[in-house]
Amino acid sequence: MSFAAASAVRSIEPGRYSAEIAEGWDIVGNANGGYMLAIAARASCEATGMPDPVTVTGHFLRPGQPGPVTVAVDVVKTGKRFSTVAATLSSGDAPLLAVLGSYSTLPDGPVGGPERVEAEPPDLPDVAECIPVEPTESFPPPFMAQVDLRLHPDDVPWSGAQSPMPRVRGWFRWRGDEELDTLGLLVATDAFPPTIFNANLPIAWTPTVELTAHVRARPPAREWLRCAFTTRFITGGFLEEDGELWDSNDRLVAQSRQLALVPRG
Amino acid sequence: MSFAAASAVRSIEPGRYSAEIAEGWDIVGNANGGYMLAIAARASCEATGMPDPVTVTGHFLRPGQPGPVTVAVDVVKTGKRFSTVAATLSSGDAPLLAVLGSYSTLPDGPVGGPERVEAEPPDLPDVAECIPVEPTESFPPPFMAQVDLRLHPDDVPWSGAQSPMPRVRGWFRWRGDEELDTLGLLVATDAFPPTIFNANLPIAWTPTVELTAHVRARPPAREWLRCAFTTRFITGGFLEEDGELWDSNDRLVAQSRQLALVPRG
Repeated sequence: MSFAAASAVRSIEPGRYSAEIAEGWDIVGNANGGYMLAIAARASCEATGMPDPVTVTGHFLRPGQPGPVTVAVDVVKTGKRFSTVAATLSSGDAPLLAVLGSYSTLPDGPVGGPERVEAEPPDLPDVAECIPVEPTESFPPPFMAQVDLRLHPDDVPWSGAQSPMPRVRGWFRWRGDEELDTLGLLVATDAFPPTIFNANLPIAWTPTVELTAHVRARPPAREWLRCAFTTRFITGGFLEEDGELWDSNDRLVAQSRQLALVPRG
Repeated sequence: MSFAAASAVRSIEPGRYSAEIAEGWDIVGNANGGYMLAIAARASCEATGMPDPVTVTGHFLRPGQPGPVTVAVDVVKTGKRFSTVAATLSSGDAPLLAVLGSYSTLPDGPVGGPERVEAEPPDLPDVAECIPVEPTESFPPPFMAQVDLRLHPDDVPWSGAQSPMPRVRGWFRWRGDEELDTLGLLVATDAFPPTIFNANLPIAWTPTVELTAHVRARPPAREWLRCAFTTRFITGGFLEEDGELWDSNDRLVAQSRQLALVPRG
């Protein structure tokens, strides 16, 4: 099932949409967080007529399982350039995800104005030299049948020879021939294995508390994105994971940060 | 007026608080964004009984001016460890700020579990060797009478000899003898001059679209915090500003990121 179909929303009544958490978008039974965020963001886009999630924050309340969900949307402000929406994605009466976002219509070309970038895209070998994350019946999880990830050979958590840095770099695109849009970028910010799987630390599970994604530009529809995720602070029982997604023109298309719990062991 | 008094909230009815944007917390007429965020977060804390804003996101909709405001709070989930609240701070019928946060009770001591930090606190000269930002009748703005900022001598935008890096480093504390709490940290994440005032770019004004703050630990009540704010991506008509706030024990107490507009000139 395409991402567009798997994240589709249908208006039930003003301020309320129905949707379905599709089969096959889960990590060992629980729906991918970026995918759930995209469903709520799509409902917010529909409610405002704005197609692009410029800045979206999700707070993850409960795991999501395949089945029907609803999205309640409250358009807090409708603006000429940005519209701001608070949304709650629920399964029955149980809220799974609270979302706050500002949505806009991003331009298709350069915007003009000053530009300055103090960063480089991640240094990745060619796609063919990176390590694909292939779905199997057990692990990797079903979600990996939706996304085509090619990991930097140094950053493969299950290789036994990975770098000790809490970092994951790799290429991203949809597995099918679907075009990647800005809602799909929300999935890309949460699609890679956790950085700390590479850190040689006794951490096997880091539930996400909150994820914020900033979308800077529409991605090229069918190209690979170069992505890098890093963690600098594992402290106080939390860690952050910072993501950067770049296109083939060395342009940043999205930036993300999530706060995750570090189980106390 | 103390921060606690300036950000106080009073329950009007379930889910609704009144508050006041105080005089003297503005930058040339508009209330400081971190201060408004703290008012909404305080109402959310009151509604949940949780004292600490672990992760809070604000979307800035309209400038705030001194006078009465209300905060509508919707407790999305009450949990044992985290409670999640959507809040809207409004002046009359006009929403000024939409907030989504998860609140908790942070421990007073170490939490145990793995720790790893791939970063250093900012390299700052002693407080006495840094440059105070003193309020005057015109500029710097009234807000600077509330916060005591001491800037790294290389990072003073109005010095004429500042570094061309889009970076601001400095010390922070309240001017009065009030103790700094985790709500006060929200103000600290938005208290310094914008990074891009140092970048030698034709940008004089960068309205904040969204600010997310993560609070990792309670700050020492009366010590100076070492703070650093950097911008890496001025692109697509936006810039981000990343903040790190450290205490005197070289412990990260908060991390922040804001997305701001770059006016097209």
